[in-house]
Amino acid sequence: MVRVPMLKGERTDRIEALSDGVFAIVLTLLVLQFTVPDVPANRAGTELAGALADQLALLFSYLLSFFVVGIYWIVHHNLFRQIDRHDRLLLYLNLVFLLAVSFLPFPTELLGVYSTRLTWTLYALNVSLVGLVLTTLWWYADRRGFTIDAIDERTGALITLRGLIPPAVFLLSIGVAAVNLSVAFYVPFLILPLQAFWVRRYQSSEPRPEAE
Amino acid sequence: MVRVPMLKGERTDRIEALSDGVFAIVLTLLVLQFTVPDVPANRAGTELAGALADQLALLFSYLLSFFVVGIYWIVHHNLFRQIDRHDRLLLYLNLVFLLAVSFLPFPTELLGVYSTRLTWTLYALNVSLVGLVLTTLWWYADRRGFTIDAIDERTGALITLRGLIPPAVFLLSIGVAAVNLSVAFYVPFLILPLQAFWVRRYQSSEPRPEAE
Amino acid sequence: MVRVPMLKGERTDRIEALSDGVFAIVLTLLVLQFTVPDVPANRAGTELAGALADQLALLFSYLLSFFVVGIYWIVHHNLFRQIDRHDRLLLYLNLVFLLAVSFLPFPTELLGVYSTRLTWTLYALNVSLVGLVLTTLWWYADRRGFTIDAIDERTGALITLRGLIPPAVFLLSIGVAAVNLSVAFYVPFLILPLQAFWVRRYQSSEPRPEAE
Amino acid sequence: MVRVPMLKGERTDRIEALSDGVFAIVLTLLVLQFTVPDVPANRAGTELAGALADQLALLFSYLLSFFVVGIYWIVHHNLFRQIDRHDRLLLYLNLVFLLAVSFLPFPTELLGVYSTRLTWTLYALNVSLVGLVLTTLWWYADRRGFTIDAIDERTGALITLRGLIPPAVFLLSIGVAAVNLSVAFYVPFLILPLQAFWVRRYQSSEPRPEAE
Repeated sequence: MVRVPMLKGERTDRIEALSDGVFAIVLTLLVLQFTVPDVPANRAGTELAGALADQLALLFSYLLSFFVVGIYWIVHHNLFRQIDRHDRLLLYLNLVFLLAVSFLPFPTELLGVYSTRLTWTLYALNVSLVGLVLTTLWWYADRRGFTIDAIDERTGALITLRGLIPPAVFLLSIGVAAVNLSVAFYVPFLILPLQAFWVRRYQSSEPRPEAE
Repeated sequence: MVRVPMLKGERTDRIEALSDGVFAIVLTLLVLQFTVPDVPANRAGTELAGALADQLALLFSYLLSFFVVGIYWIVHHNLFRQIDRHDRLLLYLNLVFLLAVSFLPFPTELLGVYSTRLTWTLYALNVSLVGLVLTTLWWYADRRGFTIDAIDERTGALITLRGLIPPAVFLLSIGVAAVNLSVAFYVPFLILPLQAFWVRRYQSSEPRPEAE
Repeated sequence: MVRVPMLKGERTDRIEALSDGVFAIVLTLLVLQFTVPDVPANRAGTELAGALADQLALLFSYLLSFFVVGIYWIVHHNLFRQIDRHDRLLLYLNLVFLLAVSFLPFPTELLGVYSTRLTWTLYALNVSLVGLVLTTLWWYADRRGFTIDAIDERTGALITLRGLIPPAVFLLSIGVAAVNLSVAFYVPFLILPLQAFWVRRYQSSEPRPEAE
Repeated sequence: MVRVPMLKGERTDRIEALSDGVFAIVLTLLVLQFTVPDVPANRAGTELAGALADQLALLFSYLLSFFVVGIYWIVHHNLFRQIDRHDRLLLYLNLVFLLAVSFLPFPTELLGVYSTRLTWTLYALNVSLVGLVLTTLWWYADRRGFTIDAIDERTGALITLRGLIPPAVFLLSIGVAAVNLSVAFYVPFLILPLQAFWVRRYQSSEPRPEAE
């Protein structure tokens, strides 16, 4: 039988190259939402400061998105250090992940300009999607055995579940925004302590085969 | 005789690096067509949703282009895993391919803003060009023996012909658009079943030298 | 003595990565000069074609720049396959080269919008700068012995002189534009035959040590 | 105990790939601040030159930023040739470095449009941040032993201190700008002689263990 190339591969370097490109561009495009204010040249000395201060609101969503994208680059970087094979579905999952990442500049600017329940909801949905798709990708790669040998079953599951915490927290923040929008902005800070707590609890409940 | 470097090369890694860069940027630029609506700040809570809904039409062409570009990245990725040498003409063919890919954001936005026969025709022509040039590139690389040894003649031809299906379907959709524009948008969904059918039919008609 | 890292290096892969990034972005940014025309939605069917036709003038400078940048990527790609070491000055020369390449989208759009002697002069100066800097870089790398062993002195000089032809032709076209602007646009087509003629003449005048 | 992947790594190639991507995009985006002037087509021959001359002020901040970013790419390139391992904190430090680099196009354009004390202060603060974060990153990598073996303690300290000179000079220029803005623009030219002086002084005060 003619074996049509099966889109299975031994290496993931071009997946990483495309992803690094998208990450780098998204990180850099975020700054484009800031615009040089239009004040009369002869009054720039006095009026420019005020005009720039009006854009301070953009800074919160800019920094949040920069670190969300940056941290997901770190997570992607680490997951793909564990993944050394791929199939066609993994390529598609990575593409959907990049779709979610590359869409983020739009809700970021939206949130920077209008701080409403709607813009936070769109923003949090987008960030949740980023996390959910990457966790799905990892779960799939782990289940199909595309990971390097060093990853045992328990560690694979731990990483999967840890990866669900950020999307869960962002989805929670949408509910919080329905009650109090200002509080919702602080909900994402729950992510790091929750992940640390989860990893600790998981480790302490471990079977410990050699001990006893 | 002085041998001027002949632009022949043993590796294709910088071709892939340039291409990955163009793909990553095109994927990320597509989002720039969405713009933050301009509504009065004090009415953002009520009017923003409507203003955003006006941009939903952009979402169809955005998603279509994202996956067209993404899938052609996958195809390019797979073809170049089979290609391990190049000459000057292959570099030029890849350049024309990148020209067609990098032009796509313009007809994409055009189609998102105006859903007319003209915009669909321009869009479908651009996508067809992407597919035709990449198939030409593959056919040339295959014919010149730039592929790795594992590719036999029959498989090379199969890949060439399979690659002609997407441009053929998009060109067909231009004819359909002349009759009924709404139907034309669904014509591209024919691509995957047609490709599967083609591969199956090709395999079943195979000479089978060992059997019998 | 403390030896401060001397910015001398054995590999050029990150130079190529940065350059490929700049090339990929410039190739992709060129399309941003095309803008979706603003016609009333209900008359898009009839008026859009005319509005798009107004942008056809942009297509000449777009295609010219795409191929200028693309061909300089090919030349850069080939020169760096011969260069395997670098020093600080080579890094700076490559930076000035990237400055000239990344500036090109501005004169390209300028030329697309206004076809005047001034815009052609700016455009041709920019393209000449790209070629002059890259040739200087090659000449410097060749003279400092940063090239791989296979390059003999005569071939090095041949490449240097061949590289001066495109900037010379573009500078010539500025003079032609002062007389007749329309003719100037065709002057760059002299580059390929002149280069072929030069390579042939150089080879025929060769010392031929073994013969006779 | 389940060992959660510790974000420690043996290689830094994807860090470099992401960083090269950000550098390449920032270098290329800088040109976007130049805009094609809007003059009547029939008077383009006479009025365009004047309209373009109005943008000459942008050229100073454009070139300054291009070389600041380019030189920091060279520095990053050289530091990472000495770094061959990383941990989570190093990834975060590199992210903050990329944040500072990718923000630079905004103060660059601001400075190009308005030459005031405020815009120079914002610009110089941004450039200082770039230098401070990269020096912190190097100092951290050196202290944690992530560098290749060839780097002795004294050389590590020399590189750290040399890296503090550019941010110090840019911070100094903010003070100068408070007195005389035009002079402040020339203060950065102090960087190269100060660094050369520092390296020379450091080397001459060296212990010289073998001599005597």
